[in-house]
Amino acid sequence: MSTPPTTGHGDISTGVAGGDSNASATRITPGNALRPEDIALEVRTGLAKPSADAAEYALRLGDDALILAQRLGHWISRAPELEEDIALGNIALDQLGHARSFLTYAGAGMPKEDGTPQSEDDLAYFRREHEFRSVQLFEQPNGDFAATIARQFVVSYYQYELYRRLTESTDATLAAIAAKAVKEVDYHRDHSTQWVLRLAGGTEESRKRMIHGLRTMWPYVAELFRDDELTERLAQAGAAVAPSSLKEDFDRLTGEVLAEAELEVPDVPAAPGGGRGGKHSEHLGYLLAEMQVLAREHPGASW
Amino acid sequence: MSTPPTTGHGDISTGVAGGDSNASATRITPGNALRPEDIALEVRTGLAKPSADAAEYALRLGDDALILAQRLGHWISRAPELEEDIALGNIALDQLGHARSFLTYAGAGMPKEDGTPQSEDDLAYFRREHEFRSVQLFEQPNGDFAATIARQFVVSYYQYELYRRLTESTDATLAAIAAKAVKEVDYHRDHSTQWVLRLAGGTEESRKRMIHGLRTMWPYVAELFRDDELTERLAQAGAAVAPSSLKEDFDRLTGEVLAEAELEVPDVPAAPGGGRGGKHSEHLGYLLAEMQVLAREHPGASW
Repeated sequence: MSTPPTTGHGDISTGVAGGDSNASATRITPGNALRPEDIALEVRTGLAKPSADAAEYALRLGDDALILAQRLGHWISRAPELEEDIALGNIALDQLGHARSFLTYAGAGMPKEDGTPQSEDDLAYFRREHEFRSVQLFEQPNGDFAATIARQFVVSYYQYELYRRLTESTDATLAAIAAKAVKEVDYHRDHSTQWVLRLAGGTEESRKRMIHGLRTMWPYVAELFRDDELTERLAQAGAAVAPSSLKEDFDRLTGEVLAEAELEVPDVPAAPGGGRGGKHSEHLGYLLAEMQVLAREHPGASW
Repeated sequence: MSTPPTTGHGDISTGVAGGDSNASATRITPGNALRPEDIALEVRTGLAKPSADAAEYALRLGDDALILAQRLGHWISRAPELEEDIALGNIALDQLGHARSFLTYAGAGMPKEDGTPQSEDDLAYFRREHEFRSVQLFEQPNGDFAATIARQFVVSYYQYELYRRLTESTDATLAAIAAKAVKEVDYHRDHSTQWVLRLAGGTEESRKRMIHGLRTMWPYVAELFRDDELTERLAQAGAAVAPSSLKEDFDRLTGEVLAEAELEVPDVPAAPGGGRGGKHSEHLGYLLAEMQVLAREHPGASW
């Protein structure tokens, strides 16, 4: 479980994917799964430079993962079993890793006034609520354990389909981030699937809560699959896929699990959404306040 | 970073240390680093059965790790850098893993009224404050980031010396738990050392805070090294080492780091302590309330 703490702050020599620590250039190759430290190096050396569209897209996916990580981190001291504390904690840390990569890459395409890239920390800690580009599902409150599992079920099937396709992006950095993420999200999918089945097939009470959790989260599903001008341009360029194109596989695969659990796909109206444009539910503000307080009190964490 | 979620609940076939999934019996051999799932299997099959003293001792170490994990988990959404979020989150999950192993083993020597072992969850979620056996250092509040690092610095040097020796325990299960833990704690030691040096050698403000953090935590150092009847009996039997025997190495190694950081060993009076006997500071009650609420509302997490 333990990995060497990444306190090096510039020491990236140990952090090269694939174990080839001398290949400092062009580690961005198709299928090469890169870690946040690798992405940061590529950005610093100018090897990774997103188009404006790709940066905006990376910001969206990074915000999704970041917000979810904050939500899941909450469970580290509060899950119903110690074993589950660790499982949800690991998922939170995986998501945080994905967020770091996406935000580092996004920052390279969103320079500060002096022309240098914004860092992952600039983007995480110093934006305001309406500047966040995450969809509203990710910021929904944890609720009870079944609601958290319902959110996780939707998220992990969505992210799996998205990242799986993104490994073939013409943007090599997006492809490399996705190649690392998709393997981890595959585990998240297994995890949530097992819990949906377990809660649905458990006691009357656990089944009732699972149904309620799914109904609570399902209004936010539609937003995941909405195309807009940005995704249309990126899809045309082969840098991303249209969100709408993920829906068929998502519906089929989640539908199979729900059928096995003898649950129905919730029949609830879609929420208006708007997260990709900075419109958020009332919950995000509180989450950001908690997440940003320390960095804002001590800019640059430099005291 | 990601490991397969451990939702199997009885499926331990994938969880065998050393990759030998067919060696179901006697995996407890000297130097064999075992995971919580392995310990649980050994307990269920009756292969691991602690003496009353060993169970009480395992409870102490398990409580230390559990309480610290809760404290560190808090930082997952609040560290000053995303990178550090992940580092502290990983340390929290490592500690939680150690806690699970120790508590599972402890529970095997503390049967319920029906004679079956208490589970890790029984011990974590259904004991009251005065039944916890952790020393008071572990429950001290996070304070600012420097205070957390100060606590972590003391804890990791203490745990490293303890677990290193415990790998040679005549109690093979304690030795196996320690063999896994010591490798992870070695990283925790590096992590805290780097931060102590970085904060002490940073700005005037960061240095001031590091000094303050160390002074806040140091009163709780003395309790770590106090012998009592239990540890004397276990030391005599070769099952554990006397806490007092760790102090020389602890003082020397932490002293070297403090000297490099040009910091003095804090000259502060020792707190009265008493954690091993169930006497805790006012902070533990709040921590337990948060940690235990969900499991207590839904006993057995069975809804």
